[in-house]
Amino acid sequence: MQRRSFLTKAGVGAGAVTAAVVAPAVRAQAQIRWRLASSFPKSLDTIFGAGEVFSKSVKDATGGKFEISVHQAGELVPAFGVVDAVQNGTVEAAHTAPYYFFGKDETFALDCAVPFGMNSRQQTAWMFEGNGMNLMREFYKQYNIVNFVMGNTGAQMGGWYRKEIKTVDDIKGLKMRIGGFGGKVLAAIGGVPQNIPGGDIYPALEKGTIDAAEWVGPYDDEKLGFNKIAKFYYYPGWWEGGPQLTLMVNTKAWDALSAENKAIVQASASHAHVHMQSRYDALNPAALKRLVGGGSQLRPMPRPVMDAAFKAANELYADLSAKNANWKKVYEDWVKFRNDQVLWFRVAEREFDSFMASQKL
Amino acid sequence: MQRRSFLTKAGVGAGAVTAAVVAPAVRAQAQIRWRLASSFPKSLDTIFGAGEVFSKSVKDATGGKFEISVHQAGELVPAFGVVDAVQNGTVEAAHTAPYYFFGKDETFALDCAVPFGMNSRQQTAWMFEGNGMNLMREFYKQYNIVNFVMGNTGAQMGGWYRKEIKTVDDIKGLKMRIGGFGGKVLAAIGGVPQNIPGGDIYPALEKGTIDAAEWVGPYDDEKLGFNKIAKFYYYPGWWEGGPQLTLMVNTKAWDALSAENKAIVQASASHAHVHMQSRYDALNPAALKRLVGGGSQLRPMPRPVMDAAFKAANELYADLSAKNANWKKVYEDWVKFRNDQVLWFRVAEREFDSFMASQKL
Repeated sequence: MQRRSFLTKAGVGAGAVTAAVVAPAVRAQAQIRWRLASSFPKSLDTIFGAGEVFSKSVKDATGGKFEISVHQAGELVPAFGVVDAVQNGTVEAAHTAPYYFFGKDETFALDCAVPFGMNSRQQTAWMFEGNGMNLMREFYKQYNIVNFVMGNTGAQMGGWYRKEIKTVDDIKGLKMRIGGFGGKVLAAIGGVPQNIPGGDIYPALEKGTIDAAEWVGPYDDEKLGFNKIAKFYYYPGWWEGGPQLTLMVNTKAWDALSAENKAIVQASASHAHVHMQSRYDALNPAALKRLVGGGSQLRPMPRPVMDAAFKAANELYADLSAKNANWKKVYEDWVKFRNDQVLWFRVAEREFDSFMASQKL
Repeated sequence: MQRRSFLTKAGVGAGAVTAAVVAPAVRAQAQIRWRLASSFPKSLDTIFGAGEVFSKSVKDATGGKFEISVHQAGELVPAFGVVDAVQNGTVEAAHTAPYYFFGKDETFALDCAVPFGMNSRQQTAWMFEGNGMNLMREFYKQYNIVNFVMGNTGAQMGGWYRKEIKTVDDIKGLKMRIGGFGGKVLAAIGGVPQNIPGGDIYPALEKGTIDAAEWVGPYDDEKLGFNKIAKFYYYPGWWEGGPQLTLMVNTKAWDALSAENKAIVQASASHAHVHMQSRYDALNPAALKRLVGGGSQLRPMPRPVMDAAFKAANELYADLSAKNANWKKVYEDWVKFRNDQVLWFRVAEREFDSFMASQKL
């Protein structure tokens, strides 16, 4: 029997209980029903889609006995309210980019992306085969959260700008939508970061409330239409070389699962992880071609801006290590792993990719 | 009830049936027991380990009702006999590098790696979100195989050489162990490829039966001890920029599974896929440092050798497209996807990785 008393507790909305009652009679076994709050709009099939891939895998693996409804940002809770919702048991699960929550504790960002961090594969390796998962599980305990790696976008673009960026001076006073933690480094080199959910960026950029905006990469950015209102498209997003998405599960909901369902949640999260990165990789090339074909101007971020940001990032990390014991503990392991990864990726990976990049294909 | 008549058929060894009979009485439900033949020695916890991660996930997700025993190369069937064994139903499943089987049909290699192919993430994207899975499923039907993506090593090293390689002339007459399909291109530029299972390479290199040998990368290579008998360690392995491992399941065994178990196999294969790449990434840096610290000489493969191999590879692919309809069908889709991936990875991914590679960390 999979049904757990947790489901009937006040923390879970009445909707979930009702839904279980009206389930078709052919399903003799009791149901587990979870609600998953995504921080993303449904229109983004890539990042919102990871929640759906996860939910379908769990449902299929349990013959429909464990169903997880996936809700877009704002449907149950706001995009940036999902950690509170999981912590309080308002929902059993959430899918989000943890760096949004650096205001609670900067350590959240190390479960996602920090400026000049790891790329997608490297961050995944730290979580699965380094100390990342153990360290983040320990950190999340205080929020009643059990975390799972569930998606990555790959290295993001540096965003859309109305004016060209040529020197660090062009960053001074620049009002820019930037995801989460990276804004702290942007501020350190003179920018004015704005933390705005995906669905609200376009009107802000259109009205001129902000001068620039980054979101993800060609495929998502094209959907949100930024190319219509800003001409220059920069790369890379130095603040997110491989931002990782996280499935957050309420600790009581997790503890109430059978060992079988725990294994199914774990494997399904990994399955969604693979799917999400693959979907971005598969969809970005054609979107980039369309954007450039439509007149968007592709520009590398000037090296002096990158250098200034790199210096500011390292100063910030040293400062945080002095002030925040949670950060210090996780960062020290993370940065050692990152440095080793960069060393290793300089060899076979880089030489192979460089040779391919040099070919006319 | 999960038990399937397939289990009692002649194709499955008597051992499997006996094991099911002696299962503890506390397990009231019938068992499914599969045997998985790996093409790799148990000593390689990375690549052999992917089979174990997969098996554990399936077992945990089914509460022990579906058990898969994982057997190293030679235990049930030889390393290069696993396709025949799955096709004939001698075993229900195998874990292998499909390019070993290019002698049956070169198309196998496109499910793994061909020279100057895709890197790890790109190949995964083609399978999960491009047309790769559909095309390979169709191809494998003729072998009674249902395939799943299950592991990748990342870009491999170019192997161990007794003498330095400076020009294409140094390749002429070079007897080299090289995995699978890449040997065809090595032969085209004058080398003498040898297809030898992992466990048999060391004695061949030690005795001088071969002049050079490539296996995987620092961690695995160090275990096999090649650094003791060859001084020069080249990168990258241009014939395998992201070789993918495949779980092969006998079609009858697959069809006999419930929908729930099918979903569990799929999610567990993806879980093992993530683990395997992560394990390589996590373990290679320290192994590389040890090898270099121990006196191994790290060398980039000279550009003229890469250029000659690239030209030979393209000629080979054109030739195969004219001769092999299976190859042509899959290759045309694959190469279009690869070219788009290389274009896209030139932008944010490359610029981010390059900046990081340029830092003293």
